Amino acid sequence: MTLADRWLLPEGVDEALPEQAAKIEHLRRTLLNLHEKWGYQLVIPPLLEYLDSLLTGAGSDLEIETFKVTDQLSGRLLGIRADFTSQVARIDAHCLKGNAVERLSYCGSVLRTMPAGLDGTRSPIQLGAEIFGHGGVESDIEVLSLMLQTLSLAGLSNVVLDLGHVDVVTGVLTACDLNKDQEEKLIDLYKAKDLPELDRYVDSLTLLSATQKEWLVTLPRLCGNKDVLDKAANLFGTISPLIQNAITQLKLISAAICHRFSGVGLHFDLSDLVSYSYHTGVVFAAYVPGHGNAIARGGRYNNIGEVFGRSRPATGFSTDLKALVALSDVVVTHSKTVLMPTSSCNDLWQKANSLRAEGYRVVESLGVNDKKTADFKLDFVNEAWQLVPVQS
Amino acid sequence: MTLADRWLLPEGVDEALPEQAAKIEHLRRTLLNLHEKWGYQLVIPPLLEYLDSLLTGAGSDLEIETFKVTDQLSGRLLGIRADFTSQVARIDAHCLKGNAVERLSYCGSVLRTMPAGLDGTRSPIQLGAEIFGHGGVESDIEVLSLMLQTLSLAGLSNVVLDLGHVDVVTGVLTACDLNKDQEEKLIDLYKAKDLPELDRYVDSLTLLSATQKEWLVTLPRLCGNKDVLDKAANLFGTISPLIQNAITQLKLISAAICHRFSGVGLHFDLSDLVSYSYHTGVVFAAYVPGHGNAIARGGRYNNIGEVFGRSRPATGFSTDLKALVALSDVVVTHSKTVLMPTSSCNDLWQKANSLRAEGYRVVESLGVNDKKTADFKLDFVNEAWQLVPVQS
Repeated sequence: MTLADRWLLPEGVDEALPEQAAKIEHLRRTLLNLHEKWGYQLVIPPLLEYLDSLLTGAGSDLEIETFKVTDQLSGRLLGIRADFTSQVARIDAHCLKGNAVERLSYCGSVLRTMPAGLDGTRSPIQLGAEIFGHGGVESDIEVLSLMLQTLSLAGLSNVVLDLGHVDVVTGVLTACDLNKDQEEKLIDLYKAKDLPELDRYVDSLTLLSATQKEWLVTLPRLCGNKDVLDKAANLFGTISPLIQNAITQLKLISAAICHRFSGVGLHFDLSDLVSYSYHTGVVFAAYVPGHGNAIARGGRYNNIGEVFGRSRPATGFSTDLKALVALSDVVVTHSKTVLMPTSSCNDLWQKANSLRAEGYRVVESLGVNDKKTADFKLDFVNEAWQLVPVQS
Repeated sequence: MTLADRWLLPEGVDEALPEQAAKIEHLRRTLLNLHEKWGYQLVIPPLLEYLDSLLTGAGSDLEIETFKVTDQLSGRLLGIRADFTSQVARIDAHCLKGNAVERLSYCGSVLRTMPAGLDGTRSPIQLGAEIFGHGGVESDIEVLSLMLQTLSLAGLSNVVLDLGHVDVVTGVLTACDLNKDQEEKLIDLYKAKDLPELDRYVDSLTLLSATQKEWLVTLPRLCGNKDVLDKAANLFGTISPLIQNAITQLKLISAAICHRFSGVGLHFDLSDLVSYSYHTGVVFAAYVPGHGNAIARGGRYNNIGEVFGRSRPATGFSTDLKALVALSDVVVTHSKTVLMPTSSCNDLWQKANSLRAEGYRVVESLGVNDKKTADFKLDFVNEAWQLVPVQS
């Protein structure tokens, strides 16, 4: 193994050196404080769990992204978490009893086997928040508002919010009476936004009526500002109450967000399904200029707790702290640095500790070049240890 | 898979629910702030690395404790970190240039394949600090002082500090002219503190003189208060300057710690080698009543950076944040909670945000039982939203 090999980190895995680490820690505290002030309680799920629990309720995407190891103690497969959502749902279902609305937040490292999207990270620091026990659009609006407040506090501007609703897609697919394979093929084409291939494929579905074919090819073309919602209501509104209700929810959300965050651009994409296939209602993603992937995303996922014995409505969002820091201009102000001599004098030890309590950074002088970075030094003047400014 | 199986966490793996998570987060911030005030800069090494880099410089214990996965991108073996020390040494050697003294701190999850010691955790949150670039006893004293200050700030009292020095063991072994197998067998016996078996084994080493045999069997019996150091000086002092120097260092450290932390008990154990076999000088561990394992440990490890192309003297310590919280009586004070109605009123949204900025926790009323936990509610009185106390 060469020296350079030992230095190398795996692709998509990075470390934070002091300057960046200070920014990440600062933003972590700022954002967790925000969530606390909104009533969200921090939980710390474990980094690894039995694979079955970790993947419960989620789709095969998550399974592919999860690193697996064998437990030497039990012989069972363990997974390193690639996402917090099912862990937090398990905590709500199993550990927190009662029917009250629960607001939970989390922040920690996740690992993924493959780099995600354009920035290609495999080791994000995921930060997010979830509401359990409320099925109305009010909790979607709350979670979306908190997400936008989170991005705003991280210093991000020009945010564009992408909104969709799983029920629009599933309502249209159900009305076309397709088999499982056909549905999955269409969902893949919607995810890939491969419109030419979609048109060819829909054309090949000979059992469909002309109206049904029109629904399927128009759906992914319903992208843009809120006029899209009226078009969708005209086109799909008569199909089912499920779709009507979904469009009404998107209109309510759109009105509330415009109201609260006038600087945020709204964009609707009615064939968007976001991720990990556990979503069941409103889905959303936030984008900023200069960042190819969504900087934050989330949505409603009402059934995930069922496999843990307690089906509760749920909605939430998550973001990547490292990506936020890379995009924002967080400035961390450092304390003034005081250099103290190496000495066994008890008064000096007491003085250093009281200066630290006052907010100074007090560093023992172990090296020759220490003075370069110090603002003050401690000198013994007039029978006492005193702060003396260092000329730079 | 039964419901109970889905709830189960692997042995030695745990999660923190809101009350405990708030304590962990509170202590995390308090302790990282302390380290910052002592001049230590936070770094965030990755959770996984190429196995070769992760295990470089460390012994086989760490290899056994490290979870391994295959990298789908490179085909190489990756390890989930079981310890931070070699990662931080790599950062010092590779990323931070110059000969200045570097002080680095870290805090994050580590995973271990097997439960460690009596409390049996496999998922500690490791918090620690390291000094690079200074080989004198002053940096050992600084790191030890910071460790004891860390434990004190975490609310732990009745701390007993166990001190040893690798050079005493290696000095005695070298003077006995043993082969590699014999040395390893003796080190295992010292680690296990199996004195009857040690006596039998030493007796079987027929090539040794009576004096050499006495050295080997007396070494692990040199345990206790600082009188041990004088006994060791009498017995081993003439063997080599290496041992003399080690005993002098232990005396200096002992004097400084007594001076600064009069409440801390000092205990010497001259055959103690602590962990992961990368240590090269002073080694130490802190114990508190009611906790079978060391609550914090560390020591000097001068050569670890060599394999990364830059050999620097180094000394440091680490502890487990979860174990600290379990032992301490951290009290987290919560903000006053204000219940706000669900409403699209813009004034209410503004009022809620300004109350949050003032330090209140403002929660939207989504559930029926919310009032139980609220201190205030927001009511529209005299044309404005006002705080009204909630009767409990």
